[in-house]
Amino acid sequence: MEVKNKIILALDVPSMEKAVELMDKVSPYLDTVKIGYPLVLAEGLESVSRVKEEYDCKVICDFKVADIPATNQKIADVTFQAGADAIIVHGFVGADSATSCLESANQHGKEIFLLTEMSHPGASRFLQPVSMDIASMGVEMGITNYVGPSTRLDRLGKIRQIIGKDSFLISPGVGVQGGNPKDTLEFADALIIGRSIYLAPDPVEILESIIDSIEL
Amino acid sequence: MEVKNKIILALDVPSMEKAVELMDKVSPYLDTVKIGYPLVLAEGLESVSRVKEEYDCKVICDFKVADIPATNQKIADVTFQAGADAIIVHGFVGADSATSCLESANQHGKEIFLLTEMSHPGASRFLQPVSMDIASMGVEMGITNYVGPSTRLDRLGKIRQIIGKDSFLISPGVGVQGGNPKDTLEFADALIIGRSIYLAPDPVEILESIIDSIEL
Repeated sequence: MEVKNKIILALDVPSMEKAVELMDKVSPYLDTVKIGYPLVLAEGLESVSRVKEEYDCKVICDFKVADIPATNQKIADVTFQAGADAIIVHGFVGADSATSCLESANQHGKEIFLLTEMSHPGASRFLQPVSMDIASMGVEMGITNYVGPSTRLDRLGKIRQIIGKDSFLISPGVGVQGGNPKDTLEFADALIIGRSIYLAPDPVEILESIIDSIEL
Repeated sequence: MEVKNKIILALDVPSMEKAVELMDKVSPYLDTVKIGYPLVLAEGLESVSRVKEEYDCKVICDFKVADIPATNQKIADVTFQAGADAIIVHGFVGADSATSCLESANQHGKEIFLLTEMSHPGASRFLQPVSMDIASMGVEMGITNYVGPSTRLDRLGKIRQIIGKDSFLISPGVGVQGGNPKDTLEFADALIIGRSIYLAPDPVEILESIIDSIEL
């Protein structure tokens, strides 16, 4: 996946009205958007195709899919049918569940991202001890796209070692959660940024400053 | 939570048309329905309130919520606002994430169910080794509703020991996945049944036979 300016906007706003308001401002700087359940539950899965069509961008659905294989497949199918270019899938529920999403992606000519580790404190209890194993499982499965946290760069580096240099790694946690854009890009191919942009008084100003800091 | 006939229907059908067709037949036997993402993504979150209103039943949203705390809270808020009586939450992502859903439930006068272990083969790799710890975490958090698998009764019994006799435990995996209804109810308070009912040529006949087998 190619990501303009190496920034994926996490469009974690509660309504299409807010999404349009933000995208009207920032879309010239971006070509990839991450949409999660809060927006989709509020506005329907049509919000994915609306954002894609109105702003000519790729959409990654951050659904952190974590169900049994049969249900994972149904979720992936309906999401790809709605136009999503990729879907984010949890690895901790096992290889069979992730495989269901991968097969759906292959059938639709789309992609999955495997979530290895998360950036919030609670992830340290159950997820962190196995996140490298989850990354290894992804490699065994032939998955080439991954998500790993910018708030723990030593671990992001290990994830990069496991998945190899040719895999595509995207990283949330920059900004409000504490991750540094330029440092994160030593290991990641693109940053996922949400609150730093959509909570800013001037989203364009903050976006331009992040882009500048990356290019320095 | 009180569940009529100790059976929760997993309404894992792809459209409201299919949901109505099934519910018209089986609703006299049920007062609790579990709705997951496949139906909600296809038909919108309105499907929750439509099922509740048309069939006067409780709805548990099986969203297996597994995100960072801020996103978990947004998912729970919008789900409860749409009328859901309860939401199923993954414990694997940590206590802070589950707490966000619990706080949302308390604010809305609704409930959460903590998912401890799952019934598919892949769950054995990462989830099963920590499922008892997840149950213990739920007890520490004051959670009183749990989900555990009917396909591994020894483990369901251990989960019951951990959560105590006064907690409410619901169990999927009966029927197509191999679990036995009566045996499962030695440990669980209610069964979650989907495919055995909605894939049957005569859903009412199979439902009556399951109810009979429970009462024997």
